[in-house]
Amino acid sequence: MRSSQGLLQLIGKVSYKRTILHNFKFINIAYNSQRRNYASEAETTAEIHKKVPTKVFNYTYDTYPHLKRNPNFKELSPSDIKFFQSILSSNEIIIDNGNNQDDLLPYNIDWMKKYRGKSRLVAKPKTTEQIAKLVKYCNENKLAIVPQGGNTGLVGGGVPLFDEIIISTNNLNKIRDFDHISGTLVCDAGCILEVLDNYLAERGYMVPLDLGAKGSCHIGGNVATNAGGLRLLRYGSLHGNVLGLEVVLPDGTILENLSTLRKDNTGYDLKQLFIGSEGTLGIITGVSILTPRRPKSVNVAVFCLNSFQNVQEAFNISKGELAEILSAFEFWDINALRMVKHHLFQGTNLPLEDKYPFYVLVETSGSNKEHNEEKLHNFMEILMTKGVVEDGVVAQDNTQIQNLWLMREGIPEAGSKSGSVYKYDLSIPLPVFYNIVEDMGNRLKDAGIFGKDKPVTDVFGYGHVGDGNIHLNIVAKSYSPEITKLIEPYVYEWTAKYKGSVSAEHGLGLMKADCIGYSKSQKMISIMKQIKQTIDPNGIMNPYKFIL
Amino acid sequence: MRSSQGLLQLIGKVSYKRTILHNFKFINIAYNSQRRNYASEAETTAEIHKKVPTKVFNYTYDTYPHLKRNPNFKELSPSDIKFFQSILSSNEIIIDNGNNQDDLLPYNIDWMKKYRGKSRLVAKPKTTEQIAKLVKYCNENKLAIVPQGGNTGLVGGGVPLFDEIIISTNNLNKIRDFDHISGTLVCDAGCILEVLDNYLAERGYMVPLDLGAKGSCHIGGNVATNAGGLRLLRYGSLHGNVLGLEVVLPDGTILENLSTLRKDNTGYDLKQLFIGSEGTLGIITGVSILTPRRPKSVNVAVFCLNSFQNVQEAFNISKGELAEILSAFEFWDINALRMVKHHLFQGTNLPLEDKYPFYVLVETSGSNKEHNEEKLHNFMEILMTKGVVEDGVVAQDNTQIQNLWLMREGIPEAGSKSGSVYKYDLSIPLPVFYNIVEDMGNRLKDAGIFGKDKPVTDVFGYGHVGDGNIHLNIVAKSYSPEITKLIEPYVYEWTAKYKGSVSAEHGLGLMKADCIGYSKSQKMISIMKQIKQTIDPNGIMNPYKFIL
Repeated sequence: MRSSQGLLQLIGKVSYKRTILHNFKFINIAYNSQRRNYASEAETTAEIHKKVPTKVFNYTYDTYPHLKRNPNFKELSPSDIKFFQSILSSNEIIIDNGNNQDDLLPYNIDWMKKYRGKSRLVAKPKTTEQIAKLVKYCNENKLAIVPQGGNTGLVGGGVPLFDEIIISTNNLNKIRDFDHISGTLVCDAGCILEVLDNYLAERGYMVPLDLGAKGSCHIGGNVATNAGGLRLLRYGSLHGNVLGLEVVLPDGTILENLSTLRKDNTGYDLKQLFIGSEGTLGIITGVSILTPRRPKSVNVAVFCLNSFQNVQEAFNISKGELAEILSAFEFWDINALRMVKHHLFQGTNLPLEDKYPFYVLVETSGSNKEHNEEKLHNFMEILMTKGVVEDGVVAQDNTQIQNLWLMREGIPEAGSKSGSVYKYDLSIPLPVFYNIVEDMGNRLKDAGIFGKDKPVTDVFGYGHVGDGNIHLNIVAKSYSPEITKLIEPYVYEWTAKYKGSVSAEHGLGLMKADCIGYSKSQKMISIMKQIKQTIDPNGIMNPYKFIL
Repeated sequence: MRSSQGLLQLIGKVSYKRTILHNFKFINIAYNSQRRNYASEAETTAEIHKKVPTKVFNYTYDTYPHLKRNPNFKELSPSDIKFFQSILSSNEIIIDNGNNQDDLLPYNIDWMKKYRGKSRLVAKPKTTEQIAKLVKYCNENKLAIVPQGGNTGLVGGGVPLFDEIIISTNNLNKIRDFDHISGTLVCDAGCILEVLDNYLAERGYMVPLDLGAKGSCHIGGNVATNAGGLRLLRYGSLHGNVLGLEVVLPDGTILENLSTLRKDNTGYDLKQLFIGSEGTLGIITGVSILTPRRPKSVNVAVFCLNSFQNVQEAFNISKGELAEILSAFEFWDINALRMVKHHLFQGTNLPLEDKYPFYVLVETSGSNKEHNEEKLHNFMEILMTKGVVEDGVVAQDNTQIQNLWLMREGIPEAGSKSGSVYKYDLSIPLPVFYNIVEDMGNRLKDAGIFGKDKPVTDVFGYGHVGDGNIHLNIVAKSYSPEITKLIEPYVYEWTAKYKGSVSAEHGLGLMKADCIGYSKSQKMISIMKQIKQTIDPNGIMNPYKFIL
């Protein structure tokens, strides 16, 4: 059957106006093909450490002086330290001795260097039993705790605000079991997502979750924050894929529910409460997850479109034509593309011209290469016949696949190189999906602060069309209360008006701890608080965050 | 490309020993092609009504005298009835007047005629607001409630045990909204599953849930019991597909969370608690669900196999070869087949010989007929090359597809025609999946009660291999405490030993209200009870069931 090259040629012959697909070459591209290295939504704590400037930034509580330490929590005493040392070996604990701030720092700050806490003790236990003992002690002594995974969060949920004790899952990194027939994987919470995916790749399976931070983030953190990412469109959310959890509850009890069963209707599905609870109900120490077979063939195409209505139409057609092999449908706007071009593709040729308002990346994954390519061809033919797309490229090998993905995944990195970025992670119904970007741009222009040589230099949008999830980014020369006031709560009110979610896949964390009311009713919040009170009566688990 | 007929011929030419597929004709089959009419796990309340014998069976509390009415619940008084009449019009309420037992009966008994309650009032409101008022009143007056959907349950969860008031969702049956791009459907809880599926079929979509009772069961009941069924293998569980719920809580508050968003990380995912809560936390009145595109092409094949190891091997191969188009992998054993043959195929030709120990039905669904058939062909060729299957048939048109499904879906009906059936719905890890059927057979033989002219006449197994879910059935001449004692708690202990679930997809209901301890720890049960206490402090919602 046809090769990708053949597909391009075939389409090239179709003589619709403006529909000849650009048969590009990826020459001299500034990045290599290791996609994960450039999907820099996150770095490892070690990498953060290296880059921490000598003069570190302010403590979060200094930046936000309205945040007050809860006086009910005990401060760390020598006897507490003694207890921790009785449970942990010397390489499993970092204690503030007055001279080792650099050792504590990577755990006290987030990767964006936006939040900084002042914890004096980092525990890195190797076993669930150790964690259970530590948590029990903390609960009895009212010592507050921050559970921390790969520390790749974007909302300040994984770092302390004051002197909370950090319990890191860094050393909890064993794969416990894998069943090659059912595809169920059971592992420690501290396993790095990419390590798991590589392990599964050798066995013909994959993690049903993929995100920029895969090289650093922990599966436990993914579950605790209900991470979304690039494969959700195809494989669904963690609420469907996680089969069981092992959790250390705030009283130190180990909740053992590492089920490997697809069906289990015995009682309320408690594990669901912990998925997306952001460490406020306990510490996830083990995960059982259903993994799908790894597709044998992957194709990627990027298209240029003239309107967001056409983006919607292309998505609609992809659901019919690509159907069971559609694995991603991502979009970005021209401002995002120009920024990526400027910061990441300088001195190289962009595979697409930066003159169309919208760009879409479509990925297909399936078990039969020929079938997949034929479906993709049919899909593209319909797009062009209907005049839905203006131009496009199809990757012809794995390197080109990685490079096309880079245009999408390089956006956060390009953004951070452009200035101080206000990031909003929103779920918005498709009919008004892109309007928030336009409305926000107009609002900032009307206020006279957006434009060349103005405080705000760029407003752009990108994200997961297939999931109704947009990332609104506002680039400023520097963060300022004036700009913030123009953006918030406007962006949240706008989202609430259209029944969207103010936190799609990133969580509430510290950043949006007071924002849940925009997306949930007072009754729901009240029930959530009762559940928190039931499971964590002393409130020691990740305080000040999630729901205030 | 090849037609199904061509596939058969092609395979027929392959000269492996015993691998020539049986090119059957479905002539004079006793059933027509309307699969839903014969998937008789359930009947409508009207149908039940018609069939209720003049002399009805015992009340459940007479059969199980250890079950006692909770004296904290108020008995229905004339003033209560007056209140109900003030909210409901005369055709929305059935009140016991001493002479209308026949009107109440269909709501007081389950379809298996195993459980019978003595409710004196059935409310059939048309709106969520009516339900909210009724529930608020019941809560303030401590009147117990049973929420009832299509009354198709198998574990006595949807009928009263004593005099609980029945709140039926029969009249709550409007489709509220459907978005043809995202595929999100929002509807009343009382919509019948098949009605929804037909509605979606006209729009190119389908419900990601299919089960025998589809012609009667309500989507709200499906969600409340976390129904599994035949499409779970492909589309996952309701925990992944339900996007939002509207629920009347026990205090009469309406929890409005009919989100149509795929991603929403704002707080604990409360809706998950209601999925599978069996009416013990509130009454689900509205459902928002993500629906997939309807496949354009469906194929079905049935194979004969010589061992359960081969069943596992065939499943493994199907995951690799059929991959994204695999939509069902069902199995049954020779005893189930012989029973179906005896009761449902008498005077007709079975499409397969009843001499192999195991049978497997494989369904594929996809967007491209030729691609699907080619994949199915490759799959079958591997099965035969490796000697995994002994014989097989492939449906050549929709009627044959329906008839092949009938061999699987007719099993419950054939069972009920054979005698009194003890039914167990278990999740069991694949390596020991079928052992429970053999072990149970041997146990009953060893006790001298299983065999021709013995109290137990048959033991058989069937179910969803793809989900690790087996239905163990034991046919007796009549139910007896002696037989029950030999089966229970043995079957539950056996399941617990292998870390299975004593309730895979049917729920706990009344039947297994004291069995959750076999699958969940005391700590988990304790948290569940706290959640119940938090949300339903008076315990009025579906008492005596689920978790005791």
